Amino acid sequence: MGKKRNLYLKTIPVEEAKEKYMAALGVLIEPKIETIDVRNSLDRITASAIFARYSSPLFNASAMDGIAVKASDTDNASEAAPVVLTEDKYLVVDTGDPIHPPYDAVIMAEDIVDVEEGVRITASAHPWQHIRPIGEDIVAGEMILPSNHKIRAIDIGVLLSAGILEVDVVKRPEVAIFPTGTEIIEPEDKPEDGSIIESNSRMFENMVTVAGGIGHRFPPIIDDYEQIKAKVSNAVDKFDMVIVNAGSSAGTEDYTVHVLRELGEVIVHGVSIKPGKPVILAVVRGKPVIGLPGYPVSAYIGFENFVTPVIQMMGKRPELLTETLDAHISKRLVSSLKYKEYVRVKVGKVGDKFVAAPLARGAGAAMSLVRADGFCVIEQSSEGVEAGEKVKIELYRSKSEIENTVVIIGSHDLILDVIADIMPNEYKDMHVTSTHVGSMGGLMALRRGEAHMAPIHLLDEATGEYNISYINKLFPKGAASSEPMALIKGVHRIQGILVKKGNPLGVSSIDDLAKKDVCYVNRQRGAGTRVLFDYKLKEAGIDPADINGYDREMATHMAVAAAVASDGADAGMGILSAAKAMGLDFIEVAPEEYDFAIPAKHLELPHVKAFIEILKSEDFRNRVEELGGYECDIAGEVVML
Amino acid sequence: MGKKRNLYLKTIPVEEAKEKYMAALGVLIEPKIETIDVRNSLDRITASAIFARYSSPLFNASAMDGIAVKASDTDNASEAAPVVLTEDKYLVVDTGDPIHPPYDAVIMAEDIVDVEEGVRITASAHPWQHIRPIGEDIVAGEMILPSNHKIRAIDIGVLLSAGILEVDVVKRPEVAIFPTGTEIIEPEDKPEDGSIIESNSRMFENMVTVAGGIGHRFPPIIDDYEQIKAKVSNAVDKFDMVIVNAGSSAGTEDYTVHVLRELGEVIVHGVSIKPGKPVILAVVRGKPVIGLPGYPVSAYIGFENFVTPVIQMMGKRPELLTETLDAHISKRLVSSLKYKEYVRVKVGKVGDKFVAAPLARGAGAAMSLVRADGFCVIEQSSEGVEAGEKVKIELYRSKSEIENTVVIIGSHDLILDVIADIMPNEYKDMHVTSTHVGSMGGLMALRRGEAHMAPIHLLDEATGEYNISYINKLFPKGAASSEPMALIKGVHRIQGILVKKGNPLGVSSIDDLAKKDVCYVNRQRGAGTRVLFDYKLKEAGIDPADINGYDREMATHMAVAAAVASDGADAGMGILSAAKAMGLDFIEVAPEEYDFAIPAKHLELPHVKAFIEILKSEDFRNRVEELGGYECDIAGEVVML
Repeated sequence: MGKKRNLYLKTIPVEEAKEKYMAALGVLIEPKIETIDVRNSLDRITASAIFARYSSPLFNASAMDGIAVKASDTDNASEAAPVVLTEDKYLVVDTGDPIHPPYDAVIMAEDIVDVEEGVRITASAHPWQHIRPIGEDIVAGEMILPSNHKIRAIDIGVLLSAGILEVDVVKRPEVAIFPTGTEIIEPEDKPEDGSIIESNSRMFENMVTVAGGIGHRFPPIIDDYEQIKAKVSNAVDKFDMVIVNAGSSAGTEDYTVHVLRELGEVIVHGVSIKPGKPVILAVVRGKPVIGLPGYPVSAYIGFENFVTPVIQMMGKRPELLTETLDAHISKRLVSSLKYKEYVRVKVGKVGDKFVAAPLARGAGAAMSLVRADGFCVIEQSSEGVEAGEKVKIELYRSKSEIENTVVIIGSHDLILDVIADIMPNEYKDMHVTSTHVGSMGGLMALRRGEAHMAPIHLLDEATGEYNISYINKLFPKGAASSEPMALIKGVHRIQGILVKKGNPLGVSSIDDLAKKDVCYVNRQRGAGTRVLFDYKLKEAGIDPADINGYDREMATHMAVAAAVASDGADAGMGILSAAKAMGLDFIEVAPEEYDFAIPAKHLELPHVKAFIEILKSEDFRNRVEELGGYECDIAGEVVML
Repeated sequence: MGKKRNLYLKTIPVEEAKEKYMAALGVLIEPKIETIDVRNSLDRITASAIFARYSSPLFNASAMDGIAVKASDTDNASEAAPVVLTEDKYLVVDTGDPIHPPYDAVIMAEDIVDVEEGVRITASAHPWQHIRPIGEDIVAGEMILPSNHKIRAIDIGVLLSAGILEVDVVKRPEVAIFPTGTEIIEPEDKPEDGSIIESNSRMFENMVTVAGGIGHRFPPIIDDYEQIKAKVSNAVDKFDMVIVNAGSSAGTEDYTVHVLRELGEVIVHGVSIKPGKPVILAVVRGKPVIGLPGYPVSAYIGFENFVTPVIQMMGKRPELLTETLDAHISKRLVSSLKYKEYVRVKVGKVGDKFVAAPLARGAGAAMSLVRADGFCVIEQSSEGVEAGEKVKIELYRSKSEIENTVVIIGSHDLILDVIADIMPNEYKDMHVTSTHVGSMGGLMALRRGEAHMAPIHLLDEATGEYNISYINKLFPKGAASSEPMALIKGVHRIQGILVKKGNPLGVSSIDDLAKKDVCYVNRQRGAGTRVLFDYKLKEAGIDPADINGYDREMATHMAVAAAVASDGADAGMGILSAAKAMGLDFIEVAPEEYDFAIPAKHLELPHVKAFIEILKSEDFRNRVEELGGYECDIAGEVVML
């Protein structure tokens, strides 16, 4: 093998790692302070208590529009015996005007009548009435804000009115970020075989901002021990913290841990967390230096667990609390006792319960983080959770947003993206979320009460009809366990065989797929496309065993199209819009009906009503026609079953 | 009177005003779009859906460190019958390396043994094992983000790895802010009699930021119709929205509404909201122009209710939801049917219930907003709430912060500020909040279960002892309604008479106060200082009626000191530190004991324990000694009663 591998890593539990590292840093780190203009201090943390320089109001001030008087001049005035004050006895004042001796009371404009000699009043004024005494709001010398306070807009107003122009605040920690790796390229570079677009550092830069720091991202360093050492060492002198990305797994090109051992002390290497294990927590010349794994999800979770708390500590910012929610997990999750595991989930409210559906668990699945509504955290001490079990979810989206979301589980189609895009634009604070498990998977999710609706396209081989017979079979009418169902009509779409541009193998029908040189890529069991494919194979009298790649399953049309576009496969079954999106050729096989199965009771939900309105809208139809391969004349019609 | 007054205002309910205005704007406002670098797109709102340009991974990639093989070469390998692959049959790969034909599987490094001819394996590999297929995470053409999505750090990472360098986002609305008023000065100017430091515009500027816009604050405009008209008209052409501050009440110098009627259409003038009534909602040449009242609290509430929603609509940002909480209101609040009223409250958790204590209700009391933990909103349809009634609080601070706060109600002393400042610094996420109602008020609050502790300094005239007899009287031992109490020892402090610098009236004792030319300012009934003053008057045989100003009551030592420093009063009773803070002379009267009464059960709370530790700390003692007039040898000692 030749190459040296770092086969290693005794991991330690997350909490222990964090505690050990924070303890090591705690004695080293003293927050830095800077003096800034109050006007630019929003969201900064006060470094010391702030005391008022002036009182507010600055003087005894009228609290009303009216006249300033000497209270003793008004004694005994009443409706029965009004008193007339001559002009030398009062002063017209507006709200906020100063009141000086001899005046010691204000009478409201509404309570006086102009007369020739001056004004007539019909009630006596008591001393200090309608006067805001000096310092009523703020007294000079009074503490306005304590230290360690996050400055808000209202604080800025009050500080200025108390005569404070500058404040001492905690400096934002400056964090240097180094991507490493010979194979990584910048996003603007043209990717070649084996290239990985460097994006973690830009995610980090923004996560630093969210944590209250200032990120400085440096160009990628190639996998060279001396270069990494020189740059990290230099950065330690100039910044408050250093992050080195990748180079922290057990791969052959991982120098970070060796560099950090040479430059300083590695406190922790390897944490019992999944994804995110190969984290390096080091201290170099009194500064925190953290190595994070290269896989985006590992990088994210490592950052949240170890970098964020350090930045918050240095910036004296409080931890941001994540909203949590109890939800029922939609499927069994097995987890190792070796790790605390972060499983990304989609969360929806169906009926009166929240349901969490796990997303892809791979460390590379960055989109699963984008799609996620939150994390289901499985503690290291747990071997997992059973389907239907109640779990605590750390939320990314607000609970109210989740409550206004249509939860769709079933077959994938690009029109779902179109709907998801239109929804929040046209219907304030309403959303659509979809998970792709195929048509049968969608109906099963409906049965378990995990979704509002299931997009399906299931051909009944006996009748040639779509969808309805499957619903009736799974939700038998009159059965106690069952409930009234409906079908929201969706689109007609063309299914076909996707082949590489120019159709180099000359595939023209299902029959050609059995040829030995065609490498096929299939859809998963329960997908409508798989049902159609199996039906067509049977019709043509072909044994699935004769299809090379029949067992290679993809979860979406687009994944099939991507596989065909690469050198991994020659053909797959899918829809025209997927072929167009990936620049593939398309051999038409059959039209089919793609509809939405829905328990009738959900039809009344406002977000489901909005969903139906979108299907009927001009905007939706125009955008779907642009995709190609669809017909949507009756989209949005509701059929009660 | 001469001056023209705007005695006016038929107000309309808040919700109606908002609806009417948003409807008027809704047809006019089209969000603007700009294209920006993805790297700088944190927290921006997508203007359209974003689709992946590249797939991720870009190629079929190894998911492990190991070797790439042809699966068919490994058939039948087992522990019993290992297979040796020669060097031409495999390729060493690291995680992320591309896998090309003929290789179609990866075997993990851990599962191979180096031998002379190559590597030995003991299990067969199935096709595509440990390979991440192209597009596994993101498929080119797939929608990554829908429109109207707030971009997060993780989104930035995924966008870049999908080859997206620029995004279309909704432009931040640009808001012009004009302070008006002849009496207002800039914070850096030296205040003169009648000056008001202009600070609202800076608060607005930062509130615009929070709402997602960009604020542009202009120098104050004097009260001149033509000037206001010219500047507003000009700003309407250049900005997306204009705010004019002050000039919206019924005062004599209010031109804004006339200017806006001339320039465009005033949709609403006067809203049934308190504070905040004199709001002007106008449209000028298709742009929103809002006039806000000058009092800071009115300005804040007017902004939150009317400006924030408009900026959010223009910027397509979701409303920020305020956390709410059910709390028991500590005292009766009467509210008019003419208004929806926003009462600022302090909220604490005492025992197992949340208690909300109303703060100053005046529109000028900006500090009450700074001190507030939230608003108790009294709907227009309600005449108020009874003491102890459950109310909904819109929170400013998080619930968890409130749960970790020591709630102090009672007598005021500057050492409370010192403790409030030390607490969050030394004890992460713990806080102190204090409300000043005097010693007796504090004990009553303890009885009602509204506070953890009450700072008191109550002299027992019979025994000359402080505090304990009052607690025993209010919490009689053994009574069913009562509970075990304790006293946390605080400080000894000197009470005295505060007089102007140089003591121009030559006050040397309580007796001198009865002289007709001394204008006194008193503390409120139930304050320990008032008890002491009354005791001293009695001792000296002086009738309170002979004290000029006996009825003028202030709530804190600092307020008394401020009154004495102004031309409103000559003398008041208070503590040395208040005299020092305001540069006053001080005539010693008597030392007294300022301690903390506390139900014994609260002594176990972690934040109360922290409070006691602070009293005992070096830091506290040093800072209190600096204030002057204190002795704190036994601070922090606990006496069980």
